[in-house]
This record gives sequence, C-alpha cells and structure tokens, in this order.
Amino acid sequence: MAPHLQNFFAYVDSHQEGFIDRLRKAVEIPSVSGDAAYRNEVFRMGEFMATELKKLGASVQKRDVGTQVLNGQTIQLPPIILSTYGTDPTKKTVLVYGHYDVQPALKEDGWNTEPFELVEDAQHRLNGRGSTDDKGPILGWLNVIEAHQYLGVDLPVNLKMCFEGMEESGSEGLDELIIAEAKGYFADVDAVCISDNYWLGTKKPCLTYGLRGINYFLLEVKGPSRDLHSGVFGGTVHEPMTDLTLLLSKLVTPNGEILIPGISDDVAVVTASESSTYNTLDFEIGELEEAVGSKTLIHNTAKEALMHRWRYPSLSLHGIEGAFYAPGEKTVVPAKVIGKFSIRSVPDMDPERITELVTHYVKAEFAKLGSKNTISIRCTHGAKPWVATPNHWNYVAAAKAVKHVFNVDPDYTREGGSIPVTLTFQDALGKNVLLLPMGRGDDVSLGWTSRDWFPRSGKMLTDRIVRASPGAHSINEKLDRSNYIEGIKLLGAYLYEIAAVQT
Amino acid sequence: MAPHLQNFFAYVDSHQEGFIDRLRKAVEIPSVSGDAAYRNEVFRMGEFMATELKKLGASVQKRDVGTQVLNGQTIQLPPIILSTYGTDPTKKTVLVYGHYDVQPALKEDGWNTEPFELVEDAQHRLNGRGSTDDKGPILGWLNVIEAHQYLGVDLPVNLKMCFEGMEESGSEGLDELIIAEAKGYFADVDAVCISDNYWLGTKKPCLTYGLRGINYFLLEVKGPSRDLHSGVFGGTVHEPMTDLTLLLSKLVTPNGEILIPGISDDVAVVTASESSTYNTLDFEIGELEEAVGSKTLIHNTAKEALMHRWRYPSLSLHGIEGAFYAPGEKTVVPAKVIGKFSIRSVPDMDPERITELVTHYVKAEFAKLGSKNTISIRCTHGAKPWVATPNHWNYVAAAKAVKHVFNVDPDYTREGGSIPVTLTFQDALGKNVLLLPMGRGDDVSLGWTSRDWFPRSGKMLTDRIVRASPGAHSINEKLDRSNYIEGIKLLGAYLYEIAAVQT
Repeated sequence: MAPHLQNFFAYVDSHQEGFIDRLRKAVEIPSVSGDAAYRNEVFRMGEFMATELKKLGASVQKRDVGTQVLNGQTIQLPPIILSTYGTDPTKKTVLVYGHYDVQPALKEDGWNTEPFELVEDAQHRLNGRGSTDDKGPILGWLNVIEAHQYLGVDLPVNLKMCFEGMEESGSEGLDELIIAEAKGYFADVDAVCISDNYWLGTKKPCLTYGLRGINYFLLEVKGPSRDLHSGVFGGTVHEPMTDLTLLLSKLVTPNGEILIPGISDDVAVVTASESSTYNTLDFEIGELEEAVGSKTLIHNTAKEALMHRWRYPSLSLHGIEGAFYAPGEKTVVPAKVIGKFSIRSVPDMDPERITELVTHYVKAEFAKLGSKNTISIRCTHGAKPWVATPNHWNYVAAAKAVKHVFNVDPDYTREGGSIPVTLTFQDALGKNVLLLPMGRGDDVSLGWTSRDWFPRSGKMLTDRIVRASPGAHSINEKLDRSNYIEGIKLLGAYLYEIAAVQT
Repeated sequence: MAPHLQNFFAYVDSHQEGFIDRLRKAVEIPSVSGDAAYRNEVFRMGEFMATELKKLGASVQKRDVGTQVLNGQTIQLPPIILSTYGTDPTKKTVLVYGHYDVQPALKEDGWNTEPFELVEDAQHRLNGRGSTDDKGPILGWLNVIEAHQYLGVDLPVNLKMCFEGMEESGSEGLDELIIAEAKGYFADVDAVCISDNYWLGTKKPCLTYGLRGINYFLLEVKGPSRDLHSGVFGGTVHEPMTDLTLLLSKLVTPNGEILIPGISDDVAVVTASESSTYNTLDFEIGELEEAVGSKTLIHNTAKEALMHRWRYPSLSLHGIEGAFYAPGEKTVVPAKVIGKFSIRSVPDMDPERITELVTHYVKAEFAKLGSKNTISIRCTHGAKPWVATPNHWNYVAAAKAVKHVFNVDPDYTREGGSIPVTLTFQDALGKNVLLLPMGRGDDVSLGWTSRDWFPRSGKMLTDRIVRASPGAHSINEKLDRSNYIEGIKLLGAYLYEIAAVQT
C-alpha cells in the first residue's frame, strides 16, 4: 500500500468523531425534497454543502434549475451543486455524484429515535434520516479532501462533484444539466462514481455494475359509455373487466415466465465468468425470504433468485384503474378499465422492441376473444437497462480499493430496479460509471409503506433501487459507524487506485 | 266492466289535479334516507303519510324499528307505517308495499328542474325526486281510497299497507318486522302487491314475476407480508396479482358463458309458454344499446338479450381490492389482493350450491397454478332468485285490470337484479307476490354515477332492480301524468279483479 494511503487511513481512524460530527450537522437539517414545507431546509442543506466545500478550498457553483409545482405551489428547485477540487491536467478527473436531500421522516412513522438527530446506538449504528442515503456518502468525499489537507498531501486525482437536492423527488432538472454540461463542466471527466446504493448483504462490500430497465404499460378496455349495474346488464354486454382479466392472464405465469413471444430473444446469455460471480456473493436465500416476509419465493437458491432479480426480465401486474377497489361489495360492471403492468428489462433488450412485441401480442390475443369492446395499449415509460463491464479500469481500481480497506474481493452485484442518472451519465458523457456503495443492505427497509402510494409531483416516481422508492419512507435509516469510517477510507483508496490504474 | 269501476275511472279522470297536488306535497318533502342531515324530512314524510291515511279513515301504526349509525351518528330509523283500510272478513285482504323515502338529489347533479319541486313539462311529465320512485305509486293507493269515499262506495277488498322509509338505504328493520308480523298483522293477507318497479319500455304495461338472485364472492390471494417493489422483487416471488388474474380469467368468457362446471345444471328449462311471452314484449334491442351507450351487446335480438338479463345466470367481475387503482403509474407488487365477482342466479339455482361449486372450482384451479401463495374464497352475500307463477289468480286479476285500463294484455317481465323484500314477503307470508309497476322504463336512469360508489351505511346496497342502485342518484326522475292517472285506475281495477277472481 502506498505510504500516503497508510497515513490517510490512520488519519481517518483517529478523526472519526470529527467526521461523525459533520454527518450529525447534516442529518440535523431536515432536507426533505418531497414536501414544499421543507423546501427551505433543502436550500439550507445545499448551503451547508457549499460552505463546507468552500472551506476546503473547492470551487463551487450553485446551479439554479428553475421551479416546480409542489403541493399546489410553484416553488424554486434546490440548486445542483457543481464543485471542483483540483485541476491538474496531468491527473485523471473523477466525477462523483450524490444527493443532499432526504425522504420524509416522522418519529410516529415508527422510528426508534428522533429521525433528524444522529444517534449512535449500542451496536454502533448511526441512526438518522439521511445517514446512509445519501449524506454519509457525499460527506465521505469531503472527509477525504479534509484528511489530505491536514496531511499536507495533494489528492491523486482531480475531483468533480455533482450533488443534487431533488433525488428523492424525481431528480428534476438533473438530466437537462448533465446533458447541457457534458461538453462543458463535465468535459474532462475520465470516470464516474456514484455512491448511493448498498451492499447486497451486511458483511461484504460490493461493486454494482448493472440495473434493469423498465417498460410500463397501460392497457385500456372500453365498452359501455358508463358504469352499469350487473343485475340489469349482467349477461347482455361484453364486460370490459372480463376481457382485461383474460388479457392480463396471458402475460405471465405464476412462476414468473413471461408469455410474450420473442420477449426473451434479446436477453444476453449468462457467460461462465458472469455465472461465477454469483458463487461468492454474501447473500442467503433466507435473507430474501425475510425481506419478502413469506415463504413464497419462486426459486430455491440465492443464485437463481438473484439472477431473476438482476439479469432476467420480469413482468408484474400492478393493478386496475376504473374497477371497484374499495373494501366491501359493489355490483358494478365497470365501463372502462385500465390494466397496469410493467416489464423489467435487461441487456440486450430494447424498450422500443419490447413495446412492439407487447403491443402486437396483446392486440392479437384480444382479437381472439371475439369481444365488441375496444382496447388500446401504450407504453408510458420506457427506460433502458444498464450494465457496465466490471473489468473496466474504473472497476479494477475500485476492487483494489476494497481489497485495501476490507481485505476481501468485492461482490459484483446488479440491482433489479433502475436509477436513471446512471444511464444519463454514461450516455451523455460516454464514460464508465461505477456504483460504489458505502452502506449495508439493511440500512433502509425494502418494502412500500401504504401511506405513500402516490408521487407527490404527479409524475412517475424515480424508480430507485434497493430501497423501495422515494415514497416508501423507510424508517430507522442508519449507517453503521464502521461503514462510514471504512467507507471514507474506501473512497480515498479508490481515488489512489484510479490514479494508479492502467487505462 | 263493473259500474263501480266505471264511476271510479270517471272520478279519477275528473280529479287529476287533486291527485297531482297530493303528489306535489309529497315531492316537496326531501325524504332522503341515505343522509343523516335529511332524517327529519324522512320522519316528516312518514308523518305526512300517516296523516293522509288517518284523514281517509285508515287505522295507522307507526312502527319504531330502532336506530342506525349513519354519517358517524346514531340516529333513529324512520317508522314503518302499517295501515289497514277495511276489515270485512268476507272480503279478500290485499297487502300493498311501497316506500316513502327517496334517493338524494341536487340540482347541480344535472337536473333540469328543482328536484324537490313537482314540475310538469310540455310532454306532461311530472318531474321531481320521488315522483315515480315511489311516492306516485304509494299515493296511488291513497287516491283509490279517497275516490271511493267520495263516490260513497266501499272498497271491494280489505287493504293492508306497509310503507317503509328506508328502502333507498338497505330497508333496515323491514325484514325483521315482516317476519315478526307474519302471523300477526299480516296473518289474514291473501295476496301481496308491490308497485315499485317500471314497465319494460315506455308504451306497454307489464306484470313482473321474476327476479334474479345473487351470490357475491371475495377471492383473496395472499403472498408477501407487505407490498413489494417490482424492481427489487419482480421475478423472485409468486405475485398474488398474477395468480388472482389467472383465477378470475377462468370464471367467465367474453361472451358471458360461465365456466364453473355444473353451474348451469339447475337452470330451469325454457318452456314453450315462457318463450312465447318474450315474443310480444314492448322492447327493441336498440333500447338496450341506448341504455348501455355502446354497440357492445353480446346478443342480436331483444329476446335473447332479455333472456340473458332475466332468466339465465351471469357472472360479472367487479374489481380488485389491494392492487394499484389510481391514475398514473406505480411499480408495486401488491402483497394481498381480493378479487370481487358475483353470479346472478335464476331458478332453480340455489345459493349454497352455487357457493359450493364456485369454491370447489376456484380451489382446484388454484392448485393447478403451482403457486406458493395462499387463497381463500367466501360468499359474502347470497340471495335466492325469485319467480312467481304468472297464472296465479293474483296475476290473473292484475292482467284483467291492465286490460280494463289500457285495453292491452300486459307484458310479462322479470328483472335482472334482486329486490329482497319480494322474497321476504313470499317466504314469510307464504302468499303470492305480484310486482305491478306504475311508471315507464325511462322514468329513472339506468347507470351508476361515479360520485356514489359506496353504500353510506357500510353494508351492501340493496340490489335494486331497474334503476342502478340506491347510490346511483338518477337525475331527472319523472312520472308521466298519464302513468300516474292511469296507474291510479290500474290499482283500483286490480282490487276489483282481486275481489272477483276465482281463487
């Protein structure tokens, strides 16, 4: 290990409390982006970041990305903070991304501690909203800079930072800024690193190199001009619910096999080397059962289950709009019903091709029904899957950094959901993107909470990865002290390995 | 025609305005039973009926049937009015039923006139809430009594009247009272007549002799312990929505054919005489298309369509509880979903047998899926179909009365929905029940309105017949002047024919 790195590690170990203090100050700012009432706090958090960065001597731009309508008011979007530390043309330039906003949190949601206070418990977990998502990781980068300044050592790379304040609420304005600055502010970036996800389990670090895409479909069946009474009309009309149910039943089997012809043709085959990465993963099938809360898994092994989460497509039926949905009984014949389903896609599936296949199949199946109703189907949201090659030097550097800090080779993981900014960076900048998590798999909860089914902004929720969604409002968010401290070392070591790695 | 009847008809013709005045006073009392704020008006309407009956010399009991919880308050139920006019043991005793409460109505729902004013338009339609449902018919009986008093003639039968004030809101307390008084107040009843439905069309009177029954089912599929995110879990768990959709798809075809084995075994065969009653019906297939508002009928002829509405079973899928139902997209995997469907049953189907067949079939189909989820199915509401024999003297008398007044033979119709009190009277009293409508098929609208999908009381809506439901809030309710006036004659003539008919 380079002597600079050894000194850096020692510094981090002996200055833990200072780093935790910085995180404490950040957690105490309730920068909830999804609620207009908290917007000032998001701005305050942006200001906190800008001030800390300036204190460290980084150049800072607070980019205004306009307004949004939230809770019925037009309000200013929080700034995207672009910051540069180091401009040495002989060094590589690494772009790091993170976010300074958080999900909502109320003690009465079931938190064991005050959510906007950082509380270390007996297990050395730092509890608090934003601790792991994503204040710990973004402050990690600042801590790395600070340590080097105290040690009187230059960073081995130039660092560009992009910290947004709207990640939990659709990342409004972010894509536009990245695309606009691809040949500007981001022009000299050599590699991208995002620290905003989690280890697969609780013991072993991982590098994340793939995300599934998604095609979301609305399938509408229309018949009568208004809802009818089943007593008066049952037996006389083609009922839209009957047709829709039949069509939805032809999309996927109870074992998760997608029935749309041709849909799997473009799924990349599993190579031997890919397959082998599954054998060493820090994950037991029991952990998945625990997350689901039932013994209803399709597969018997962690490998099969993770492959079907990460690298095979899946199709889920989400619900029906227009039919009776409340508790109790109602004898209605719904006049117009909209089935909602989505396909999680993987390389080398293409959103347009998926839409084409689904549309063709659904229409053909409908024609067989002999119904006089009419259907329409449309894909309302199509996002490509993402996969990076884990032997890119960006990943090689990260793997070495993991080895330095944790003395193990990292797991190579993917995620089943999507995280749109990953693709935006890759496509707009044309550079390799690495997901390098700081926290553990149990830092935030995985389920949905019932009280937040709808995106506040009315647009589709950003489809986040390990945790459920921006609307899920996980409770008891935490970042283990060791993950924070070793994570700071990891981010620093990663920069050294980036500097050293053969490109 | 009996001379008394001729005089009676002439009296009715020459005293139209007085009868309409009585209806006007009744319509001006907004006796909405489904809204606690109007409960005083329901009581006021009950008082109006009691006072009118007493003025005519009838004995009146206002039966207290207890309290209910409505809009969060415990309030008194309106009285059921039991009234007797005539106690001559040498005469037959006819029990007539009707209701003095009405559906809600607001001008802004789309009414052309003030709903709680009786307004006669250029087409001689008497517009107003309750005009046809059911204030016109119940006042019809009072008008018959009044006319005979003025004419100085006794009624040819003893009349017992049962008028409730909760028909639009579940008829609370009614069944219990009927059963309790079957051997008491109602002991000497020879036949029952209910005037609370409509002609099939707009031109020809009808006698209604059948109603379908209903079995309402909740089919629950349960998997994960909480809703999941399709990105994280799609492809790894047996999704309850997939299983439920498949099961629902196996219940009925797009052409309305029920797929549950054995379900049609008990359907009574169509006899030649029954079949012939369909040939003369005042009904065109176009009227059904108009009611539905689309060209999505299963059958091509009125006869086929009406048979499938009235005398064949049907199965409707109403909706799903627990899945995503709102506009927009949501990538949820629902953890527990409840499919809701019902079967409209006909003679000689039996609710218990239906439940048995459905339960057995659904469980067998589920077993084939190979899913690890669990299901449960239950019938939450089972009501028998009802059919009377149209050659019973009660119907023979009514048919003769129709001939006197309208100079045509009546249509013999059934209805596709259920009207529970019919069966209660038949079963508790053991007497023939006749449905003898006063109004036309277009008096109230047939659809559902969207703003009232839920029963206010939280219990299942009384499943009313021609109009959609108590929650449907039809607008522009009307009773044609001629239907009211000729209807009064019809009710009177019916009593004469009852007195005369061979039993």
